[in-house]
Amino acid sequence: MSETSVLCDIGFVGAGVMGKNLILNLADHGYRVAAFDLDHKKLEAVIAQDKAERGDQPARVISCSSYTELLSRLSAPHLVILSVPAGKPVDDVCLKLIDAGIQADDIIVDTGNSLWTDTVRREKHYEGKFIFFSTAVSGGEVGARFGPSLMPSGDPYAWTRIEPIWRAIAAKVDPTTGRPLERHEPGNPVIEGEPCATYIGPGGSGHYVKMVHNGIEYADMQLICEVYQVMRDALGMSAEQISKVFKEWNQGILNSYLMEISAEVLATKDSETGLPLVDVILDKAGQKGTGLWTAVSSLELGCPAPTISEAVFARSMSTLKDQRVLASTLLSGPVREHCTNQSAEQMIKQLHDALYCAKICVYAQGFDLMKTAAAEHGWQLNFAEIAKIWRAGCIIRAVFLQSITEAYERNDDLQNLLLDPFFSKQISVNQMNWRRAVAEAAMTGIPVSALSSALSYYDSYRTAVLPANLLQGQRDYFGAHTFERTDKAKGKTFHVDWSHTDRTMQKIK
Amino acid sequence: MSETSVLCDIGFVGAGVMGKNLILNLADHGYRVAAFDLDHKKLEAVIAQDKAERGDQPARVISCSSYTELLSRLSAPHLVILSVPAGKPVDDVCLKLIDAGIQADDIIVDTGNSLWTDTVRREKHYEGKFIFFSTAVSGGEVGARFGPSLMPSGDPYAWTRIEPIWRAIAAKVDPTTGRPLERHEPGNPVIEGEPCATYIGPGGSGHYVKMVHNGIEYADMQLICEVYQVMRDALGMSAEQISKVFKEWNQGILNSYLMEISAEVLATKDSETGLPLVDVILDKAGQKGTGLWTAVSSLELGCPAPTISEAVFARSMSTLKDQRVLASTLLSGPVREHCTNQSAEQMIKQLHDALYCAKICVYAQGFDLMKTAAAEHGWQLNFAEIAKIWRAGCIIRAVFLQSITEAYERNDDLQNLLLDPFFSKQISVNQMNWRRAVAEAAMTGIPVSALSSALSYYDSYRTAVLPANLLQGQRDYFGAHTFERTDKAKGKTFHVDWSHTDRTMQKIK
Repeated sequence: MSETSVLCDIGFVGAGVMGKNLILNLADHGYRVAAFDLDHKKLEAVIAQDKAERGDQPARVISCSSYTELLSRLSAPHLVILSVPAGKPVDDVCLKLIDAGIQADDIIVDTGNSLWTDTVRREKHYEGKFIFFSTAVSGGEVGARFGPSLMPSGDPYAWTRIEPIWRAIAAKVDPTTGRPLERHEPGNPVIEGEPCATYIGPGGSGHYVKMVHNGIEYADMQLICEVYQVMRDALGMSAEQISKVFKEWNQGILNSYLMEISAEVLATKDSETGLPLVDVILDKAGQKGTGLWTAVSSLELGCPAPTISEAVFARSMSTLKDQRVLASTLLSGPVREHCTNQSAEQMIKQLHDALYCAKICVYAQGFDLMKTAAAEHGWQLNFAEIAKIWRAGCIIRAVFLQSITEAYERNDDLQNLLLDPFFSKQISVNQMNWRRAVAEAAMTGIPVSALSSALSYYDSYRTAVLPANLLQGQRDYFGAHTFERTDKAKGKTFHVDWSHTDRTMQKIK
Repeated sequence: MSETSVLCDIGFVGAGVMGKNLILNLADHGYRVAAFDLDHKKLEAVIAQDKAERGDQPARVISCSSYTELLSRLSAPHLVILSVPAGKPVDDVCLKLIDAGIQADDIIVDTGNSLWTDTVRREKHYEGKFIFFSTAVSGGEVGARFGPSLMPSGDPYAWTRIEPIWRAIAAKVDPTTGRPLERHEPGNPVIEGEPCATYIGPGGSGHYVKMVHNGIEYADMQLICEVYQVMRDALGMSAEQISKVFKEWNQGILNSYLMEISAEVLATKDSETGLPLVDVILDKAGQKGTGLWTAVSSLELGCPAPTISEAVFARSMSTLKDQRVLASTLLSGPVREHCTNQSAEQMIKQLHDALYCAKICVYAQGFDLMKTAAAEHGWQLNFAEIAKIWRAGCIIRAVFLQSITEAYERNDDLQNLLLDPFFSKQISVNQMNWRRAVAEAAMTGIPVSALSSALSYYDSYRTAVLPANLLQGQRDYFGAHTFERTDKAKGKTFHVDWSHTDRTMQKIK
């Protein structure tokens, strides 16, 4: 049989960094892929890499020169995966595929970083023309190539078709240890283990969950950065010294991909100057929107996720470089002799515990946000499964996720991660060092917005009576916004006539 | 001349709490108002109150039974002011007035709490049919009646017509002291002083500025509440004792309307139980959206305003009452003997200075947000004038605003309020107590999310080198997001090939 006469299993549109790696990952697992990209050079690069990797075997990827050709190369019903930039390009490709003759029982899977509400709209919009399915992909280019974490959502029929494919190419976890299994060799696809791919729920829910994953990632990264800054600026440690501490921490409860790569970045030398690379990188952080979307969603749903917002704002603050350099010459900080004295070793231990406790609070915020969104949108999210598929493949992968899975397996209706006995114990044991680290940073003048926001979150959450009673009094005073009483039934509201000297109270409803 | 034959100066739609008071305020200043409301009872109440107040004088307000009658009672070109709920009702009324024959050179002024983007849309949408003008109103019902703070924006021609009216009814400030002049007597309209009404800019800018006013208000209230909670829960002070401290603070640099009413709320007894009223008010705070809009805008514009977000989240957290009561029994706090000992008096002084410094940071965030939005939308905002019209009439009115006006008069291009010599000096002098208060709260287990967020903001802003260099290293490692170098030109980006052992660096552009 000639190469062209064999129909392919999967059509693939978009051969950029992520697309190319997903195509090769699919090919590794025995799927024949027909690929198309507007940029023919990108397609050629995929074909060349396939050739280089497959040795004497027949081609696993074929390139197409049009959407029509792409569909003609596929067995029916057609399955087409998109890896194109989020936004307008997704709809552009869908319209082209309609023109090319895609059918009502064909499936298009969007794997881009789409805003979840766009996914909801598209699922409805393309109904009857084809099945629009979505899968959020985490893990960057290496994840795409050797095993990403996959968050699929949409039509359940489509899922039965896609499930074996996603389970094959996803990252795998050792079920006994909960740790990622590595497959960093092309052409060696078969590893056993639990795949990091689970059906999330109705359309949009997968991208929502991925969005929250990224929000958590923002906060996780910010926490590590704050700890780094305290070590650098208060303890005067070198990048190399900090790298050593992070490497050590990565062996314990703080084990995570982000901790691992932070240690690696800090250990890297700049070939040009010989300095630690980190010391020549400019301190201006970029962002692509998913952290911001998470923060906005938490505000709109009235679900407190302050530490994620602080992490987004920390990136914005970093971009004001010129202002900060000027401000550093004009705004005074604390006089150092006011700081308490303690050994660097003690301080490092404090930072370790602070990072751990704050991290628990960040995950508590993220999972609470998903719970609130699920209630709002009628999704049945399985949080034990979501934590499971984040154990490998994705950026926030960590041993820690195993404990979250166990918490939700103990109680799938858990209101907040902090209420789980394991996590409440962890914070109970480690909190004093967290408090000391935050207090010390305040006295020393090092900004720790995420570490301290997480502490306020914890302390607010465990406060039976917050000062919002005074706030409701203020609101009733200037705006007649009414208040409830502690000694009356819920929902009954009262208003004081503040302009009268005797301040009479009325029941409103 | 009979009552009905005299044409009125102003048509007014909406006689709710705010509308009624604005109508009577206009009448106080000699304007004849023709009023309409779908609810005839509300109209009757206005007419009755006008009658009660005007004594033997002729009626100042007449009621209309239709939009057509309303227009027929007005001199041309018509001026109609709306005080209806934000959202759809505004457009509903506009369409009714078009049906009733409003003309292209007539003016409709929306005084509701509209989202500023709706105002921008409406101005465009109604072009050629009538002139849509907007004015954001602050000050609650008392402000509306005796002098609000007014933030008008839109068509400059319309402003020439509206200006004398708004200047007449606005709150007034003593130009020598910067303090509000009181006019809490109906029928005694004439007070001299600077009116709190200034043209803000193109359509939407007035409502944007009002939105930020409310965001600042949220944070201001939250800061006061946190200080209250430390006094209540750490120092064990009674509502009455705290009220006394607040009254004293209100005589000094912390003087503000919110401080004043907080003291009053705390001093008020519940007539039913005899307890301090605040102790029977339930600690669940409501919100109407403007704080949330401000937080979302700051996230979207990439302009750090973390303390405003923390204040919004604090309200969300307060609504989780049942969870908090449960959590208070399950989650442990600090062991008290770990806290440092100090006298209550010292702690109160610390809280005073903390509140003052944090408040400066909140205003710095709010004004920076307005500056960023102005640059984004091409508005020419005059910040000295904006601070001026907030000195009276509105909820955040405070002596403090006078210092902000002076800061922008010194330098109308000020990048951040913190860089003004007066404010940088204030923080420099008071910061150690702020730091101690935050540190103490962390050790004692009292949540002070806004006080500590403001501190992190200050410390970030004055940090020449933030830890975002590590963050950009992380981002380049997992996502090839590139970074800039401290030793190369701005805008040149670099990427490290992290998969190679020698970690070669490429220049990207």
